[in-house]
Amino acid sequence: MENFHLTMPTDIYFGKDSIKKITKGLNQYKKILLVAGSGSIKKNGVYEKVTQQLDSMKVKWVELWGVVPNPDIEKVREGIKLIKENDLQFILAVGGGSVIDTAKAIATGFYYEKDPWELFYDERKVQKALPIGVVLTLPATGSETNGNSVISNRETREKLAIHNDILRPRFAILDPQFTYTLPPIQTAAGSADILAHIFEQYFSNSKAYMIDRISESIMKTVIKYTPIALEEPENYEARSELMYASTLALNGLLSSGKISDWATHAMEHEVSATHDITHGVGLAILFPSWMKHCYSDERAGKYLDYAKNVWDISEKDPFNAAMMAIESTSKFFKDIGLPSSFTELKIEQNYVNIWTDSIVKRRKSIGSFKVLFEQDIKSIYQSAF
Amino acid sequence: MENFHLTMPTDIYFGKDSIKKITKGLNQYKKILLVAGSGSIKKNGVYEKVTQQLDSMKVKWVELWGVVPNPDIEKVREGIKLIKENDLQFILAVGGGSVIDTAKAIATGFYYEKDPWELFYDERKVQKALPIGVVLTLPATGSETNGNSVISNRETREKLAIHNDILRPRFAILDPQFTYTLPPIQTAAGSADILAHIFEQYFSNSKAYMIDRISESIMKTVIKYTPIALEEPENYEARSELMYASTLALNGLLSSGKISDWATHAMEHEVSATHDITHGVGLAILFPSWMKHCYSDERAGKYLDYAKNVWDISEKDPFNAAMMAIESTSKFFKDIGLPSSFTELKIEQNYVNIWTDSIVKRRKSIGSFKVLFEQDIKSIYQSAF
Repeated sequence: MENFHLTMPTDIYFGKDSIKKITKGLNQYKKILLVAGSGSIKKNGVYEKVTQQLDSMKVKWVELWGVVPNPDIEKVREGIKLIKENDLQFILAVGGGSVIDTAKAIATGFYYEKDPWELFYDERKVQKALPIGVVLTLPATGSETNGNSVISNRETREKLAIHNDILRPRFAILDPQFTYTLPPIQTAAGSADILAHIFEQYFSNSKAYMIDRISESIMKTVIKYTPIALEEPENYEARSELMYASTLALNGLLSSGKISDWATHAMEHEVSATHDITHGVGLAILFPSWMKHCYSDERAGKYLDYAKNVWDISEKDPFNAAMMAIESTSKFFKDIGLPSSFTELKIEQNYVNIWTDSIVKRRKSIGSFKVLFEQDIKSIYQSAF
Repeated sequence: MENFHLTMPTDIYFGKDSIKKITKGLNQYKKILLVAGSGSIKKNGVYEKVTQQLDSMKVKWVELWGVVPNPDIEKVREGIKLIKENDLQFILAVGGGSVIDTAKAIATGFYYEKDPWELFYDERKVQKALPIGVVLTLPATGSETNGNSVISNRETREKLAIHNDILRPRFAILDPQFTYTLPPIQTAAGSADILAHIFEQYFSNSKAYMIDRISESIMKTVIKYTPIALEEPENYEARSELMYASTLALNGLLSSGKISDWATHAMEHEVSATHDITHGVGLAILFPSWMKHCYSDERAGKYLDYAKNVWDISEKDPFNAAMMAIESTSKFFKDIGLPSSFTELKIEQNYVNIWTDSIVKRRKSIGSFKVLFEQDIKSIYQSAF
């Protein structure tokens, strides 16, 4: 086990009608910025529930609407302006990962004297942040309790991330009922995103028995409950398990004592920078291809664990077991309604070179489970068509 | 899944030489109380490592030695006096659960104007606490990151607990190397304690698929690594897995969304109040007896999961599988060197009535997986002889 530091300070209020706990979370803050997406929270009643609570607490708020998937730095700039103009003290994100990530970038960008995009070129500049709270409506990114923010810049065609514990939200309201109205593709892409986060930490050369078994437990949960949530959108049990899985998949727990990989995420970020596809969809397409590429005798033990403990594959030959497990992974993504290749998304093959060039011009290699160089990256992109 | 609140704010610094991170943990505190046990930390070098760090930070400290297993309220009173006399700001616990629990009771007792034992009669009186830090030397109670403190009163022959998130330590230094010199019985009793904490939360009627699988993962970890740590006391991997298991077993994670039981702990507290036995030893004796007593058709599913997922028992008949799993549990405790009955400890049978009376005079029933009344409690005690 590698040395590690871990803290999970977010106050999680989980369950039916947990929105009422927002009074505990907001505590003394009386002037806040409410950040939201394109309006689905008005349709499903979440906006009303949140603002009723704010009203009852005599909290004043300013609203920032229009955060899009693969959220843009422009919206961050807009948010910082609103905070300064209105002298706000707290940011409440009501939505999924894009909304939360935008809130985090605003929170730290507020204290940075220059343009906030500079923080994404050098995350050491992230030093201070306004407090943030979250009302989650889409289980996927884990952003509700972690310190990560991923923002895109459509002008420079970049998608970059910052990480810092000071960006961890003060509280997260997790009411599984708020996810009943999610479109099936969002439920499915969210689950792919959760699994992808686990893969990035699970497929590692670090030895960490307990954390590996816990990772498998969360993978099994997502695999079991995603089809149920798709079949019965108002199944509380399924929605609860998926919501809590998203949180535990990326709050620091699963990487404790381990060196994580994150090559596939780096590769997906290139794809969504050029094509604005849903993050989880890109990951679901890339991961089986990455898994195949990384297989080798010395890494076979990990694949055997994955096959046996996640997919109940009893095959003893490591290579066969690995291929069966990868096949099960692909089939799972397909069965929940996700595309299996970039070809299906009508992306042209010449992007293999564009994406690869964009990665290698900044970094010589990516990943750690297997260190990937230019040819590896190309080959993984290629076989995802 | 039941509604829940969860926060895990303790800064965990895990790994080799993590003692150096004490500088981050202590931050601005310059006058502290160092709480310790009977002196083993002087023999194994931990005391020297800690005080070297304190010296290098120019921290002044006062020492409170002599915390015993089943720590007594008298030592808490002594600590509060030292803090007041010396105007200290922070409490550093260097030791196992007893030392940490004493530190917590001092931390909140300091702010309580009357005798601190009153807090244990009514934990709602726990309102404020001094900040605490931990250097862990014995993985067992999980006290290093949770908000629990269990204190005995030898005068009134009571053992009572308080729980509050404000008692969660600010930081916990977890260096597995600090457990290399533990006597085998303490390693074994610590592991029994960890398993017992998981049992209390796992055997529940609440449905929580993911948390149940995670619980099984941690149980498997303890079962796998305890014999290795006993065989090779300086096996870093085994010591790491056990140390992290103790933390995750009782930091709130495994009870999220579940109603916990805690009947067996209530029963063990009676035993150690009259006989001062090691907590983990008492739990290892009582749990198999409790498991047998609670078996019924409607609870059979839980036992089947336990048998299959923890002990790899493929038996399909629920009753047989349950009995085999309980037998495996007893055998495990025996194999790691723990006594199997109160008779082995030379405790006399008439205590069955004394313990039972002491419980039922305060509470009509205990537990929730199966609610236990006077006759149930007697019967479980009885079959543990």
